[in-house]
Amino acid sequence: MSLIVQKFGGSSLANMQRVFNVARIVTQTYNQGHSVVVVVSAQGDTTDELLSKAYEINEEPSKREMDVLLSSGEQISMALLAMAIEKLGYHVVSLTGRQAGILTNSRYGSARIKSIETERLFKELDAKNIVIVAGFQGWNKYDDITTLGRGGSDTTAVALAASLHADVCEIYTDVDGVFTADPRIVGNPSKLRDISYDEMLELASLGANVLHNRSVEMAKKYGVKLVVRSSLNDSEGTVVKEVGSVEKMYVRGVARDNDIARIAVIGIEDKPGMAFKLFSLLARERISIDVILQSIGRDDTNDISFTVKKADLQKSLGVIRENLGMLNAKEVKYSENYSKVSVVGAGMVNNPGVASMMFEALYDADINIHMITTSEMKISVLVDVEKAERAVNAIHDKFKLGEINS
Amino acid sequence: MSLIVQKFGGSSLANMQRVFNVARIVTQTYNQGHSVVVVVSAQGDTTDELLSKAYEINEEPSKREMDVLLSSGEQISMALLAMAIEKLGYHVVSLTGRQAGILTNSRYGSARIKSIETERLFKELDAKNIVIVAGFQGWNKYDDITTLGRGGSDTTAVALAASLHADVCEIYTDVDGVFTADPRIVGNPSKLRDISYDEMLELASLGANVLHNRSVEMAKKYGVKLVVRSSLNDSEGTVVKEVGSVEKMYVRGVARDNDIARIAVIGIEDKPGMAFKLFSLLARERISIDVILQSIGRDDTNDISFTVKKADLQKSLGVIRENLGMLNAKEVKYSENYSKVSVVGAGMVNNPGVASMMFEALYDADINIHMITTSEMKISVLVDVEKAERAVNAIHDKFKLGEINS
Repeated sequence: MSLIVQKFGGSSLANMQRVFNVARIVTQTYNQGHSVVVVVSAQGDTTDELLSKAYEINEEPSKREMDVLLSSGEQISMALLAMAIEKLGYHVVSLTGRQAGILTNSRYGSARIKSIETERLFKELDAKNIVIVAGFQGWNKYDDITTLGRGGSDTTAVALAASLHADVCEIYTDVDGVFTADPRIVGNPSKLRDISYDEMLELASLGANVLHNRSVEMAKKYGVKLVVRSSLNDSEGTVVKEVGSVEKMYVRGVARDNDIARIAVIGIEDKPGMAFKLFSLLARERISIDVILQSIGRDDTNDISFTVKKADLQKSLGVIRENLGMLNAKEVKYSENYSKVSVVGAGMVNNPGVASMMFEALYDADINIHMITTSEMKISVLVDVEKAERAVNAIHDKFKLGEINS
Repeated sequence: MSLIVQKFGGSSLANMQRVFNVARIVTQTYNQGHSVVVVVSAQGDTTDELLSKAYEINEEPSKREMDVLLSSGEQISMALLAMAIEKLGYHVVSLTGRQAGILTNSRYGSARIKSIETERLFKELDAKNIVIVAGFQGWNKYDDITTLGRGGSDTTAVALAASLHADVCEIYTDVDGVFTADPRIVGNPSKLRDISYDEMLELASLGANVLHNRSVEMAKKYGVKLVVRSSLNDSEGTVVKEVGSVEKMYVRGVARDNDIARIAVIGIEDKPGMAFKLFSLLARERISIDVILQSIGRDDTNDISFTVKKADLQKSLGVIRENLGMLNAKEVKYSENYSKVSVVGAGMVNNPGVASMMFEALYDADINIHMITTSEMKISVLVDVEKAERAVNAIHDKFKLGEINS
């Protein structure tokens, strides 16, 4: 007998039929003799509806009250799922973040889990209950409700799996698993049987929306075996674990990210420390920098280009403009017309051929590369936004990723 | 400076405009230098919507999970009201039943408040916060959410007022106060300036929907001064307190209750203990009995008639039919075609003229009386349901209740 944590997202619980579908998955697992802890998100559009009610009243509500409001969404879905499981004839109990013992820090709206007091959870499991836990929420030392921010329910599931020493943490979603590329972009992507935490982290941060970064980081840290699978069919899903299988390939997937703004600081004086000054200004504002390119400009000056998330564009431009003098720079330009296209795979670093194959694919498809960045496990390029889908397809074809499981 | 508890029902919070209206009432009170604790119900139809979602999934969900579900309604309204108060520029904090320290027994769906731990409440008041508390809900010793049942938010408000030693507990509603009769039935009812707890209790239990019984009982027990007033205008409302003013009248109001089913057990053997046997059977099923009439039937047998709430009709019939033999009774009949019409007033018991005036009013209006019951403070009659409104008007006119405040 093992302990299984199963997480279901909002779309898996969007209506009565889907709630019963989830109830059947959960009770089937229970019937196989396992202990089951279920983590749920708010149903379908509930969170968006609550947000719009809030913003209608106050465009800048306090984050504390926003957390009070939003946490009700998971409370509604956990009660409804519990009722469906009762209807199927099983003993079940639903728990809020607090009842499940999920203690967080006090950063409302994007809290971090500090610890999980598992006493109540184990008591309910010992009593043979199916246990449903509200995802995305916890409680802080002031006795207040907190929420974990975007992707929070995945994080709740992994944290519970780690604390309860679960055998596996299953993340149910509306796709069959992790694919070599987004099925909305590429016609014939392959589903990966398994993938390493690091590869999954790269894919997640490069725009694959299957799992949230923090949940993968936590799974890696605590060695939680993750399975990503569909709530709509029985297909096996993708296992995320320490080391992926050694299939004869280096590239595991292609991802695209449109949430990119490029900023170019032009005419920076060519002396040591200028890049440090620029990026420490941005770091102070908690702005994350991605691809960086430094090139020699005219008159012994340098141009430094880099990308940020679109939401950080205006703040970044403001900081830089205020400090153009200190940076000895001439001007700052920006563009939102780029996409980042990346290939990811653990073995790439030892195979220089991967980069040249990628560039060849783009060249054959007549797609210009604006910037390049590489790391241990990925190669990313910036291309024109309107060419990004074509780029993903060209690369996917070049590496024959559609044939992995065939 | 005084401490004021203000309770707002679901219709007072039904949309954004009304939420702001409530926010203005609350902040005006705060501006006058008072400490304010606000108790809220779920917005408008929220509770009904949650109930229908639940019943769509499971027609008999556990009461525990129903409480988890329904308590989210108050959580949503308290957060939205807090955001509106923030928008007006005030410090505010919203608290769930648990955060407000409201400990109840464990009867899910109709829990009773056992105690209120006021530490957090006083801490927030000391910090000059306006404090919003979710009505209708609490927490039990198993660390689970409970709800207080119908009218629960009124009870929350009174219990908080008692525990915090508030100077007054204001119940805001969509009528101007307590009237001599339901304005939907009588064209010219008078608003009462004040009324005693006991009179209010009688009126409440006889079908006046202004305040819930339990909240009035609790207010009486702890001497909490209640004011019933409108959230839509500034009129003064009705004060509910220990002894009402001695206006020159005995009758304080007329009420009608359509939630009546009459059961008649026919041909019970005429020997001691039969009524006891009958009503102890019903008591065991927790069925409340109201008007009782015993009459001599044919052949030395008795007929016993009594009324129950419509919701209890089928259960009552079932119990009686199963025990007809034990009761030595011939048959059981029932009817749902009656209404109960009552007059209420503290001085009535010493004025036998009240009853005859009431019967005269009904006689003049050609309305037949089927059953009569009297108590210290009320006289109730059963009349045909379709004549009930006419009966209320006839009695209201007879006692000149429309002229009280004129």
